[in-house]
Amino acid sequence: MNFIRIAPWALLAVIGFACIPVNAQETPALTTAQAQNVDRLVERGLNDDLAWEILESLTTEIGPRLAASPAEARARDWGVAKLNKLGFKNVRIETFEMPYWERVSERAEIVSPFPQALAVTALGKSVGTPEGGVTAEIVRFETLPALAAAPMEGFEGKIIFVDERMTRTQDGSGYGVAVAKRSGAAKEAGKRGAVAVMIRSVGTDSHRNPHTGGMNYEEGVIQVPIAALSNPDADQLARALKLANDPVVVKLDLSVVIKENEISGNVIGEIPGQTDEIIVIGGHLDSWDLGTGAIDDGAGIAITIAAAKLVGNLRGKPKRTIRVVMWGAEEVGLYGGKAYAAQHADELDRHVLAAESDFGAGEIYRFDSRFGEGAVLKAAPMTTALRKLGVAPGPTNIGGGPDIGPIRDLGVPVASLRQNGWDYFDHHHTPDDTLDKVDPAALRQNVAAWAAFLYMASEMDGDFGRLPPKEAAE
Amino acid sequence: MNFIRIAPWALLAVIGFACIPVNAQETPALTTAQAQNVDRLVERGLNDDLAWEILESLTTEIGPRLAASPAEARARDWGVAKLNKLGFKNVRIETFEMPYWERVSERAEIVSPFPQALAVTALGKSVGTPEGGVTAEIVRFETLPALAAAPMEGFEGKIIFVDERMTRTQDGSGYGVAVAKRSGAAKEAGKRGAVAVMIRSVGTDSHRNPHTGGMNYEEGVIQVPIAALSNPDADQLARALKLANDPVVVKLDLSVVIKENEISGNVIGEIPGQTDEIIVIGGHLDSWDLGTGAIDDGAGIAITIAAAKLVGNLRGKPKRTIRVVMWGAEEVGLYGGKAYAAQHADELDRHVLAAESDFGAGEIYRFDSRFGEGAVLKAAPMTTALRKLGVAPGPTNIGGGPDIGPIRDLGVPVASLRQNGWDYFDHHHTPDDTLDKVDPAALRQNVAAWAAFLYMASEMDGDFGRLPPKEAAE
Repeated sequence: MNFIRIAPWALLAVIGFACIPVNAQETPALTTAQAQNVDRLVERGLNDDLAWEILESLTTEIGPRLAASPAEARARDWGVAKLNKLGFKNVRIETFEMPYWERVSERAEIVSPFPQALAVTALGKSVGTPEGGVTAEIVRFETLPALAAAPMEGFEGKIIFVDERMTRTQDGSGYGVAVAKRSGAAKEAGKRGAVAVMIRSVGTDSHRNPHTGGMNYEEGVIQVPIAALSNPDADQLARALKLANDPVVVKLDLSVVIKENEISGNVIGEIPGQTDEIIVIGGHLDSWDLGTGAIDDGAGIAITIAAAKLVGNLRGKPKRTIRVVMWGAEEVGLYGGKAYAAQHADELDRHVLAAESDFGAGEIYRFDSRFGEGAVLKAAPMTTALRKLGVAPGPTNIGGGPDIGPIRDLGVPVASLRQNGWDYFDHHHTPDDTLDKVDPAALRQNVAAWAAFLYMASEMDGDFGRLPPKEAAE
Repeated sequence: MNFIRIAPWALLAVIGFACIPVNAQETPALTTAQAQNVDRLVERGLNDDLAWEILESLTTEIGPRLAASPAEARARDWGVAKLNKLGFKNVRIETFEMPYWERVSERAEIVSPFPQALAVTALGKSVGTPEGGVTAEIVRFETLPALAAAPMEGFEGKIIFVDERMTRTQDGSGYGVAVAKRSGAAKEAGKRGAVAVMIRSVGTDSHRNPHTGGMNYEEGVIQVPIAALSNPDADQLARALKLANDPVVVKLDLSVVIKENEISGNVIGEIPGQTDEIIVIGGHLDSWDLGTGAIDDGAGIAITIAAAKLVGNLRGKPKRTIRVVMWGAEEVGLYGGKAYAAQHADELDRHVLAAESDFGAGEIYRFDSRFGEGAVLKAAPMTTALRKLGVAPGPTNIGGGPDIGPIRDLGVPVASLRQNGWDYFDHHHTPDDTLDKVDPAALRQNVAAWAAFLYMASEMDGDFGRLPPKEAAE
């Protein structure tokens, strides 16, 4: 945030989200013809079922598509066929290698004093337990910081239970806080000699479908198996600890497969433009194995393809090329986004803008951006045009999203059409991420907003500047 | 319904649910002292947490308690200890023998053309598949009647899929319709030589936790394994059939254990009365194995014990004995209710009234009854007293409930405090039947209504008549 100067208008937007340009003459505006096309695209988007058809096809015909799995490979072939059928050009798969992780089986039970099964799921990239599982006394911590503050002795051979709850929010900010325990709990448990960790799911629902999600071990710390309990099961374990007179003993049995190098890939298709400038949009093609990846992130793929197609249907080529990327292997470590940045390093200077859709299928309620110095005001006409869809102006200093992070860090400006995520973490990373959770009307509103945004991004005079390259963080 | 004469007042109640006695002089009334005690009990019930404590204890310390399982035996011991601790008298277990069924494992997957797992659960008392499962083409029927109307040929070796949906209702009437397929689908499939049946869950939610429930085979028909798909999985299978160009092939693999004679039992405790007349109330102690049986039917046990305890706490003995029964083995065939009727045949003439709570923990909104000829008007003062709790008058010709069915058929009058079941079938018979689904305020309202009802049932002058014995139906 320290490397970007904020214009007075943008500052207002950041602070109040209700902004009127300080000086109307400084603000770029659409031409009358452009404004008419925006209206046309909004109207068409609100009546377009292509996104639903794409999403139904992907989630039904492929279903779950774990990164680097055979199902993800089938999804890539599906993507190529779909883009070709819709008339996209330069359709291709760009592969990359990555480590592979797969869940085989997972079971947990309270052994004593109140014997009963618990619903658990292994976190992505967790090691398995020794064969036959581990059986040990439970030690509960209210939060991750409470565990991090605990002494280093006294937890050897125990199973640590981090019971931290996630707060429901519209913008997903509760996730940022709660997700820290997915990697943090294993790290802290490993340091203390625990034999396993169980966390309360990073999720906001009350169903017995625990939430998986990626985790990472810290170099040099013993790798402890980690699993998530569903919220009702975390409640149950906490109650058992409250009511029991004796230690609560749990058995956890996780079996996983880990391989060094497997193949994943990005699927790419384009609506060619008149110039060699490129706008990159998309969603990620992989999903967790538990659900069919409707909200995470089939919807992102469906929305961005349908919106690009609407823009492509207008008379004449767009000014800039609209490139749709179905990113591979996002969930397990953003492999697709990183591979894209590496594979397209020589043309990133022609990438004038990037945006991704990866927060479900809720209605878009805010337009966020980070454009280069001198181009910040270009968000204003976009926001104004989107207002008829109920979209408010948002901050102008945002991150943009995980898969476009690597190219943003190399200077590519980003925008984000923020979706209402109030219910997103009820289903996120669970078996319940299925098509019935998507509201067709909200999906159409997304397509309308994306089509309008894409058209403006393609047609507006001048580019969106460049972001100062970020020092390599990894 | 043909064996009970309906009083004019009752008829109004049946038709309009808003009734004023036709002739006030005919209607029994509470004494002033009785009315004061009712007010006292309502007040105390609305502030009483005993039901919650009982329910928390049962669902946490025992958890799932499948009929005739070791867990159900632990639950009986829990029940004896709980009733003794609360000061109930004549606390005992009355055992009986019954067949035993247990789920071992269950898996289903679409094999082609869209390979992916499906969430299924075996129905209670279903046979297993041959080892290794059955793999066959799916044939879908929209409803059970559509299957029943299908030809007898053409389905040999197929897996039949009955996709019938359940309607959400407050009073559970949608269940009565939808549940027919649990036994009916297996019967119709068996007649047609199918190798297995899958049904859309009998439930109203959109989560990937399928609903189990008891089924029965018809004598002389081949026993076909039967499982329920969750609603999202039934959606998915229907979509796969819509989108596929080739037959949809599914593999179903169910493993179960069936034993001839195992032990279950009813747990009984009493608040002794001044006379030898008995009022029987209770809920069932067993639950399905998937959840912890909070709404089905731990809540019924908690509510009736807490209400009886409140009546017992009043000064002096109640006029009639209040007998609480925790029925065993309800889910798999009402074994507890039938055993009770047989074991207490010689004292049923002293059973003046029976009522059970077995529809979750939603607020009570209606008071239903079936009293003997000449006693029908006795519902009126009860309804009037309950009106302050938002309880409306209901029909006077009802069934009463499953576990008291056998003694009702032998002449014992029944009442039913009807609970709001709008959400009941979201969680019923799934892993999601857990304590977090119970609203503590609604639970207290239940206790208040039950305490008031119990007191009136105990203290009102004269009995509630007798019902004409029903011809043995079984």
